[in-house]
Amino acid sequence: MSSVEFKGYAISDPKKWNDFSVIEFKPKAFQDTDVEIAITHCGVCGSDVHTITGGWGEAPFPLVPGHEIVGKVTRVGSEVKGFKVGDRAGIGAQIGSCYSCRACKSDNENYCSKSINTYASKYPDGISTQGGYSTAIRGHEQFVFPIPENLESRHAASMLCGGLTVYSPLVRNGAGPGKKVGVVGIGGLGHYAILFGKALGAEMYAFTHSKDKIEDIKKMGADHVVVTDDEGEFAKDLAMSLDLIISTRDVAEGMPLQQYLSMLWIHGHFVTVGLPDKPLPQLSAFDFCPNGCYLGSSAIGSKKEAVEMLQLAADRGIKPWIEELPMKDAKQAVERLKRNDVKYRFVLTQDLA
Amino acid sequence: MSSVEFKGYAISDPKKWNDFSVIEFKPKAFQDTDVEIAITHCGVCGSDVHTITGGWGEAPFPLVPGHEIVGKVTRVGSEVKGFKVGDRAGIGAQIGSCYSCRACKSDNENYCSKSINTYASKYPDGISTQGGYSTAIRGHEQFVFPIPENLESRHAASMLCGGLTVYSPLVRNGAGPGKKVGVVGIGGLGHYAILFGKALGAEMYAFTHSKDKIEDIKKMGADHVVVTDDEGEFAKDLAMSLDLIISTRDVAEGMPLQQYLSMLWIHGHFVTVGLPDKPLPQLSAFDFCPNGCYLGSSAIGSKKEAVEMLQLAADRGIKPWIEELPMKDAKQAVERLKRNDVKYRFVLTQDLA
Repeated sequence: MSSVEFKGYAISDPKKWNDFSVIEFKPKAFQDTDVEIAITHCGVCGSDVHTITGGWGEAPFPLVPGHEIVGKVTRVGSEVKGFKVGDRAGIGAQIGSCYSCRACKSDNENYCSKSINTYASKYPDGISTQGGYSTAIRGHEQFVFPIPENLESRHAASMLCGGLTVYSPLVRNGAGPGKKVGVVGIGGLGHYAILFGKALGAEMYAFTHSKDKIEDIKKMGADHVVVTDDEGEFAKDLAMSLDLIISTRDVAEGMPLQQYLSMLWIHGHFVTVGLPDKPLPQLSAFDFCPNGCYLGSSAIGSKKEAVEMLQLAADRGIKPWIEELPMKDAKQAVERLKRNDVKYRFVLTQDLA
Repeated sequence: MSSVEFKGYAISDPKKWNDFSVIEFKPKAFQDTDVEIAITHCGVCGSDVHTITGGWGEAPFPLVPGHEIVGKVTRVGSEVKGFKVGDRAGIGAQIGSCYSCRACKSDNENYCSKSINTYASKYPDGISTQGGYSTAIRGHEQFVFPIPENLESRHAASMLCGGLTVYSPLVRNGAGPGKKVGVVGIGGLGHYAILFGKALGAEMYAFTHSKDKIEDIKKMGADHVVVTDDEGEFAKDLAMSLDLIISTRDVAEGMPLQQYLSMLWIHGHFVTVGLPDKPLPQLSAFDFCPNGCYLGSSAIGSKKEAVEMLQLAADRGIKPWIEELPMKDAKQAVERLKRNDVKYRFVLTQDLA
């Protein structure tokens, strides 16, 4: 039997997207492959705001957001191999998949077409998934990540979506020694891209429209900081020079996308992990052929990558720049995140259990 | 001194894009690195139509189109190493570059930012480049391709742009045994993509909206033929199954681009070598993240790739499906090409010299 209660801070209506109230919710039926976690920390992700405001489309309400979850294991199923009660463990933005398709069998379970999101989705048994602004969560061992001993829970939490979302496209696109990597937008994801890109050995170019972030960005380790303008003038000096660009920008309006593409070296990739509510600026085939570049996106990362990333963070002492708030202040966190008033990630701490 | 005259079939006004007249033109000054060719054959490329109609923007007139050129070498500069008078040789869509940048030094001269197009461009000495619907052409040895002995000139001609434009993205994206490659649009470029994709060992999927091409496409060697609709219904059965898609479609209107992207396996590339006059359909970041796919383009290919491609064609007996016309029928060729009435490439034969 479970030793935890399931309750959390929920939004009931996207029109009142900042109005949290505590609800009790029914967890999924516990299965032999599941791990149950009593949550101690949960990061506040841009996805939370996009979802509770309805920007990414309809979502089921009431809804407890949060998918950067760390806590202590309270129960393990009989088939669980990697965890025992009392371990620290985390869950990111994905909590289920089919476990058997080509994607799942190739460490690409994050691209499984039957992926289940940690909140605003449904388990196969019909129960709504609820996120980590809450007391507890259950998930299949595949989607539970062990937290290395010398990595603090508060530091690990926002790595599990914010960190992984940039770590995966960095490593899949060869970020490392000898590579020049751009990062567009230095918020939560962008600051992780700089931290991990540097740790992987790449030369990092940070693109920001906020002059007041320059000093912070240098402290994060960026080799170059470029202040951007919507006209794209900044791009001229960097034509065909970057091997990879990770864009965390999640507002499409006014995005100088053509200019960003022009900075890529031959066959370089522009990966937008920022997912604007609105369509991207319209492009022509001619925007791609001068350098044979590519535009794409990426979906979080695999467990294999999450484990590597957490170990890298532990080994190198990588600490995200976070602001901690008790969970009851979720309202303040999402409001400030929506207006980009955070340096650079909120982490909520447990106050319900 | 040159033994050839320089004259060709020119268009004088994009409003009269099908009205050719014979002009004499001044060739570039002959340099020690140059090869001069008396033209015997010239393919008719979609680029010719886009350029003479003004669809790709302003061009200098009078203009002799044609950049799929084969002929006999009539003169070689003192520094030329790979050719002698009497050899068969060809020139494709590029006739110059800087010869010294990072792109030029890495077999990516097709991406040199100082690339010179075979026509509608200018040599460094200010002379306009004129294409191959003409008697002769001069070019730097780097952009002159040897034609293998057992490959007929009429078969080689349209490979030098049409063939190379699909061969390069095929090989750069790993088309080969065990890979599933889609080809959108089975005209001149598309038929080459099937021929070369098969020769490279890939499993080829042809996408056409023309039911009356099905039998031809099977004869070209496609493993699968899919008849498309603008709604994209055809894509559902192929979700996340193709490793690469080469799109030769050069009309953006009504293009079911989202559906094409949905057919790509994880991190698969959609390479549009078709360059529509108008912008591509507008996309959202969400169109890319379910499979982490990429959209891009490609610019012809390198000399290294051209030489490989021609040898592959010679070794495997690859013959394009062509219709030969005398150069004086250039009008008929461009008119019929503009309405897609060609199976599958026109090759003009010399009648001025």
